[in-house]
Amino acid sequence: MDINEKSLQKHYEWKGKIETKCRVDVSSREALMEAYTPGVAAPCLEISKDIDKSFLLTRRWNTVPVITDGTAVLGLGDIGPEAGMPVMEGKCALFKAYGDVDAFPICIKSKDTEEIIRTIKLISGSFGGINLEDISAPRCFEIETRLKEELGIPVFHDDQHGTAIVIAAALLNALKIVKKDIGEIHVVVNGAGAAGIAIARFLLGFGVKHLISCDRFGILVEGDPQLNPAQAELAKITNREHKKGLLKDAMVGADVFIGVSVGNVVSKEMVASMGEKPILFPCANPIPEINPVDAKEAGAYIVGTGSSQYPNQINNVLVFPGLFRGALDVRAKTVNLEMMKAASIGIAGCVSEEELSPDYILPYAYDKKAHETVAKEVAKAARDSGVARL
Amino acid sequence: MDINEKSLQKHYEWKGKIETKCRVDVSSREALMEAYTPGVAAPCLEISKDIDKSFLLTRRWNTVPVITDGTAVLGLGDIGPEAGMPVMEGKCALFKAYGDVDAFPICIKSKDTEEIIRTIKLISGSFGGINLEDISAPRCFEIETRLKEELGIPVFHDDQHGTAIVIAAALLNALKIVKKDIGEIHVVVNGAGAAGIAIARFLLGFGVKHLISCDRFGILVEGDPQLNPAQAELAKITNREHKKGLLKDAMVGADVFIGVSVGNVVSKEMVASMGEKPILFPCANPIPEINPVDAKEAGAYIVGTGSSQYPNQINNVLVFPGLFRGALDVRAKTVNLEMMKAASIGIAGCVSEEELSPDYILPYAYDKKAHETVAKEVAKAARDSGVARL
Repeated sequence: MDINEKSLQKHYEWKGKIETKCRVDVSSREALMEAYTPGVAAPCLEISKDIDKSFLLTRRWNTVPVITDGTAVLGLGDIGPEAGMPVMEGKCALFKAYGDVDAFPICIKSKDTEEIIRTIKLISGSFGGINLEDISAPRCFEIETRLKEELGIPVFHDDQHGTAIVIAAALLNALKIVKKDIGEIHVVVNGAGAAGIAIARFLLGFGVKHLISCDRFGILVEGDPQLNPAQAELAKITNREHKKGLLKDAMVGADVFIGVSVGNVVSKEMVASMGEKPILFPCANPIPEINPVDAKEAGAYIVGTGSSQYPNQINNVLVFPGLFRGALDVRAKTVNLEMMKAASIGIAGCVSEEELSPDYILPYAYDKKAHETVAKEVAKAARDSGVARL
Repeated sequence: MDINEKSLQKHYEWKGKIETKCRVDVSSREALMEAYTPGVAAPCLEISKDIDKSFLLTRRWNTVPVITDGTAVLGLGDIGPEAGMPVMEGKCALFKAYGDVDAFPICIKSKDTEEIIRTIKLISGSFGGINLEDISAPRCFEIETRLKEELGIPVFHDDQHGTAIVIAAALLNALKIVKKDIGEIHVVVNGAGAAGIAIARFLLGFGVKHLISCDRFGILVEGDPQLNPAQAELAKITNREHKKGLLKDAMVGADVFIGVSVGNVVSKEMVASMGEKPILFPCANPIPEINPVDAKEAGAYIVGTGSSQYPNQINNVLVFPGLFRGALDVRAKTVNLEMMKAASIGIAGCVSEEELSPDYILPYAYDKKAHETVAKEVAKAARDSGVARL
């Protein structure tokens, strides 16, 4: 039985990957009087006087919805909100298992940006943070930006920033191995959708100076009329040499290739054209931009993919549980660049200098210590950057 | 320490009355491949082909949000959505403990009827049913009616129907004791808000023929221009003798008084004016319409209140966990009158003829057997009335 059949069968058996757990005794008259009526009036009145108390007197402080509109689920695309639910539930299970965050899935039956923003704002009073998931570009940019501006709690679009954070972590460690400086390397990011744009921007924030983004049509060049608004913005801060051409042109002499596009768009010749000891992260799912075996044969020094079948799985499961754990622990007002950088550095630091090798640049997704490190580093960064309330 | 202080202190200690529980193993590479990527694509694709599969492949089948706008919380009134959260969480805890229903609280930051309806519709794809809570009249009528029409899952406004169901159960058993026929009795319902109107309508459905509803201004009379639309509708089917006057006038000769209004509006003289072996359910919270001790002194034969301090607590905790358990078990399309009547009859039947006494007309709220009975009877009624999908 292949993994798809096995997973489907398991999902039928599980009948849900999460459930609600009751944390209090409600089994007697006295217990009911405390947890429910009439006693419960007291915490209600406390919160009505000071809404901030909802973080102390309810589970709000630890609760995050995993919200999707089902328009960009895995590599499956727009499969509808209900169909996204198995992924959302899976994330909720991971949130709990690795971050002790109480997450639950919400699918929104609308593709209208304003309506999605409004819906999330209206229900935000129940939550300590908001995790956006599998919402297609360009709507995801506007939705996240507006919610960050309008809500005072952490808002995080995992497909953008979770991916960016774990790729940056992988890159930091890969650079240690090849002994290259982040300010000197030439990076090519293929795919200029939500993840690709977030990765490019985040790497610039980490000190990358030479970065070219590509999409289906080739290299993003400032002023190209075919770029969408998010790509046009990105083109203003990348490819400062205004290089034109296709992906293969961008890759000549590059030190790093990062793919968040589609399978099999990178050839062995393209890898061979790269600079010394090239690093490749072909992360397209389920089929990578180039098979790691082919990439290695063509001269790749370090390869990481989105798949657990090969060494160096680049999995954003390493990010979101710890990131929210840290943000919730200090009741951060937002998720800022400092917190995201701290998450990357924290993940990278979980692999010691001695352990580090071309086939082991990241901790495993199920490494509890890595999640705890992310939580600690994110909380510290929130405090240091002045966005922590605790 | 009084119950309010004690409850407040406990709420600070609890830091939330519910949490999320992970139901699956995610602790290894293989487990992650089944519960999350890449295997999770398979159940997603199944649901995208047939949305109904979301009831089989996710927790949707067992999941109910407890939704409020915070406008009519307990007896506290419009205290705001966040301030309603301790009550919503308490209900979620009870849903789990007594019905094994996975509930979680959602507070909506809007008082606009259309906006609330829209928000709930947009997030409804995550849920097997919808529990509305503490939404003020008359908006609650429109919100419930519209959602019932527009969603194909059970929608239940507990303040209306939960209260009506448990009061009807209490009445059925009280009538057995005083040996009166439901078609003969004269009933006065004081309070013509959400609960009072629902109680009156539900009792008519149970065969009550003589019923007078009162509100602050006195008896509801058909054609009275001061009635709001919901009251005007009710006045067309109650008080068929077009009696006018105040509550005290309505109570003369009545067999049953039901109060869902405010404290201390019924005097001993009013009780004394009632018919033989009068039944009184003064359910106002936290102070009943008349103290049970005073009511008994004035001649009341059976008294039940909303409080657990006196015998015969009339608590809708007896209703909602079992009602949703039953409705979810057969994947009912709605909650109809037959299901609600079955719940009342089921609750009443939990007290045997031998046990029945003026001081023991209802099972206790923490009686697990009662909840199981409600679930079983509601499921059966859903099947018998043709609204069950399973």
